[in-house]
Amino acid sequence: MKARVFVTLKKGVLDPQGAAIGNALASMGFDGVDSVRQGKVFELDLADGSSQAQVEEMCQKLLANTVIEDYSVEIV
Amino acid sequence: MKARVFVTLKKGVLDPQGAAIGNALASMGFDGVDSVRQGKVFELDLADGSSQAQVEEMCQKLLANTVIEDYSVEIV
Repeated sequence: MKARVFVTLKKGVLDPQGAAIGNALASMGFDGVDSVRQGKVFELDLADGSSQAQVEEMCQKLLANTVIEDYSVEIV
Repeated sequence: MKARVFVTLKKGVLDPQGAAIGNALASMGFDGVDSVRQGKVFELDLADGSSQAQVEEMCQKLLANTVIEDYSVEIV
């Protein structure tokens, strides 16, 4: 069983890395990029019988900093 | 228009960061995690009329290191 976890900064949290990427794209001639935000994705290979609840517990405890980050879990 | 770009290490490329996360999960008592691979996700806010081809060009030129990374583009 595979799971994908997306961790992104909450709205309102400054993302200087994303802003730098946006500026770089603009300076390379890509117009029309209004904003860029960078996040993380984790691809987990899990034993069969693992549950989404377990993955969410992993997010709460390790994968995401829930003070400033949101996460979402997708079972593939 | 919004696009999401996923950048992950190619198969066969060592991912020490992912391995460290896998070890940390195991040491926290999460059994059944066979492997973890970490990647990046970019959320792009684009002007209307931008095309997927443009986003793929951004990946080729800036967002992904195509020597060691794969990317996929999803228009949201």
